[in-house]
Amino acid sequence: MNKEYMDLAFFYAEKAYNLDEVPIGAVIVKDDKIISYGFNLKESNKSVLEHAEIIAIREASKKIDNWRLDGCSIYVTLDPCPMCASAIKQSRISFVYSALENLDKENSQLIHKIFENNTINPFVSFESNIDAERSKKMLSSFFKKQRNK
Amino acid sequence: MNKEYMDLAFFYAEKAYNLDEVPIGAVIVKDDKIISYGFNLKESNKSVLEHAEIIAIREASKKIDNWRLDGCSIYVTLDPCPMCASAIKQSRISFVYSALENLDKENSQLIHKIFENNTINPFVSFESNIDAERSKKMLSSFFKKQRNK
Repeated sequence: MNKEYMDLAFFYAEKAYNLDEVPIGAVIVKDDKIISYGFNLKESNKSVLEHAEIIAIREASKKIDNWRLDGCSIYVTLDPCPMCASAIKQSRISFVYSALENLDKENSQLIHKIFENNTINPFVSFESNIDAERSKKMLSSFFKKQRNK
Repeated sequence: MNKEYMDLAFFYAEKAYNLDEVPIGAVIVKDDKIISYGFNLKESNKSVLEHAEIIAIREASKKIDNWRLDGCSIYVTLDPCPMCASAIKQSRISFVYSALENLDKENSQLIHKIFENNTINPFVSFESNIDAERSKKMLSSFFKKQRNK
């Protein structure tokens, strides 16, 4: 875990914030080099697929020219949803570092199950709540801003 | 359920087959009109995101100009993986018709949980094994062809 990459994920989350998107950012790193990044653009690009992690995975595969992202780490400012968790798993990303645990218990259980299912895809290491206060503060501020509109 | 749309999903699955991709096809329908389709292009496009369902959802959102696909049905030739199931759920697709149940028990349980979790996203109706023999035959033929290479 390198705090610098988490800071960068927050930098991208802030870009989403400024576009009135739920502020979530993601950065993919391999061998201490930044491969790709993404931030939530669901409303702007009118697609549920435009989550930070999906965008980062799409760009990483383009850059590496391979769907296999073995040895990569993904830094995210909030636990991935089941869609993104499964995409991470299938792309064989090796390490997931998340700033904040998913507060929806059912979704949280689901993503743990997705990460732990090693029948088809290899093991993925998952560490959460790395920078919980910062992520909570950003999300709270976002939802407060939206309510006041 | 309209058998004609499932036939069309198989038509697209065959396109994947001919490209040496695991043969899976998907068709999205609304108000008895075909909105979009997709077939597995994971190897060709070098991305785990290039599943039939994801491609179909991406195109449907573009066409409808909205991430909300309420009232749509998706026809698939094999149960979706957790990534696709969660994308279907989040896009608010109303009906899922699958030709064949996922044979991996863990993944099968996961997608049922994803479809049943109605805390955030609305109810999705899921019907499987609609044309199981046809799907099995196509998949077996594909894996046999790959082994013989």
